[in-house]
Amino acid sequence: MKNRRSFLQLSALGIAGAVAKPSFALGSFEAPTTFPLGFAGYSFARFDIDKMIAMLQKLNVKNLSLKEIHLPLNSSNEAIEAAKKKFADGGINVYTVGVIYMRSKEAVDQAFEYARKVGVEMIVGVPNQDLLSYAEAKVKETNIRLAIHNHGPEDKLYPSPKDIYDRIKNFDPRVGLCIDIGHTLRAGVLPERTVKEYRDRLFDLHLKDVTAMAKDAKVIEIGRGAINYPAFMEALKKVNYKGVCSVEYEKDMTDPLVGMAESVGFVKGIMRG
Amino acid sequence: MKNRRSFLQLSALGIAGAVAKPSFALGSFEAPTTFPLGFAGYSFARFDIDKMIAMLQKLNVKNLSLKEIHLPLNSSNEAIEAAKKKFADGGINVYTVGVIYMRSKEAVDQAFEYARKVGVEMIVGVPNQDLLSYAEAKVKETNIRLAIHNHGPEDKLYPSPKDIYDRIKNFDPRVGLCIDIGHTLRAGVLPERTVKEYRDRLFDLHLKDVTAMAKDAKVIEIGRGAINYPAFMEALKKVNYKGVCSVEYEKDMTDPLVGMAESVGFVKGIMRG
Repeated sequence: MKNRRSFLQLSALGIAGAVAKPSFALGSFEAPTTFPLGFAGYSFARFDIDKMIAMLQKLNVKNLSLKEIHLPLNSSNEAIEAAKKKFADGGINVYTVGVIYMRSKEAVDQAFEYARKVGVEMIVGVPNQDLLSYAEAKVKETNIRLAIHNHGPEDKLYPSPKDIYDRIKNFDPRVGLCIDIGHTLRAGVLPERTVKEYRDRLFDLHLKDVTAMAKDAKVIEIGRGAINYPAFMEALKKVNYKGVCSVEYEKDMTDPLVGMAESVGFVKGIMRG
Repeated sequence: MKNRRSFLQLSALGIAGAVAKPSFALGSFEAPTTFPLGFAGYSFARFDIDKMIAMLQKLNVKNLSLKEIHLPLNSSNEAIEAAKKKFADGGINVYTVGVIYMRSKEAVDQAFEYARKVGVEMIVGVPNQDLLSYAEAKVKETNIRLAIHNHGPEDKLYPSPKDIYDRIKNFDPRVGLCIDIGHTLRAGVLPERTVKEYRDRLFDLHLKDVTAMAKDAKVIEIGRGAINYPAFMEALKKVNYKGVCSVEYEKDMTDPLVGMAESVGFVKGIMRG
């Protein structure tokens, strides 16, 4: 997964998984512009790594943003290699790690070392603001990109994508954003607008839905809520988004598979529609 | 449910369930043309009526084509009233009954009497070809519409929608089709084409997906298969389809909820996309 070419090949597999490509002639159709689907690992917080892989297989989603719940940041090399084998055997492409919080230089160092060992080219992370320059230096040193994640109106650091963008827009171009569109809407900002405004730094996405454009909105199955998915997908196509669309499903966390499936289906339908 | 106005009101509820209608101003968006979602009762063949209602609630789908598995054709009036109360209490709109096979005049009589007692204005049925005129007379007598269902290349009676349409096109306009788009594709016919060709008689739909345009194709989660859903939805919009889009999910029949949810999500996404 370290090699960019293999990452792109696996991403292509992700696209193939998301879009039906019938091979017969009559009744065949052109696949429209779509994006590879993935999942944010936090969605599986209540499940172990084996169960998570089985659930991803059931959902037919190949790409995963690995959360340290499923592979701790201080794991031994042996534990990391064992986990990588499980993902490879299960057909799962770990395309990034995160969300990783970084509250000290040591935590920044640990995150980048972890990413290197896992073999990803990007970290979804939340460095404290006074560590942003240090994190940028690590990006330059390691060539591992950093996508900083917004966490909504309660977040002291980065409530909305603009709070990230304004701080990193003059940084190395390998420092960017993982826009969480649920937290974005709760912060009173339209996700489709952020896609266009921060397109040059948009590396990753957490897709979800929320019941309203309000701080206290609740998470809900994608498609049942207040996010304007047609406009959001249109914006992604317009900016020629090159990343993964990772669903982060945080409702019914002890029994999420049905809601995850509806969400995945809806996103696939919106992409195809 | 007998009254047309109440049927339309309940259908409108079905639409509301399928399409998010956020009430806030900023971030609000126009709902596109969509169709009420439903389920064909056969999807729940392995479950009793209570479990079916709970599954429909979980899926947030309100409209049901009631199959006699869940309420036998020879049910007593008391049993029918008890079932109707369960559906009403569960927020489920039984908009039709079927698929009911009719192999004798007595079976035709029974089907129409059952529909009257259940309180629906349409039967999805399969009368033998030599009973079509008798069934048409029952439609005129009862004002209950009959939507005849195609069952694929193995079907001796109605393999594809054309086999129905050609026999009923000069009948009373209340005799029409319930097009099963999976069986249609397996019969080598594009569903989107049948929607346009038989628009004047298109009363109901069974939505599913199949792995290929081939007789031996397998059912699969909607969106993963060979049916060109964008073209199919476009055709429904073009002909201004007035019926319900009922999913019939026949994969994993002992544990179908995850696949049902993905299918429902996909159909909602395609409608919105």
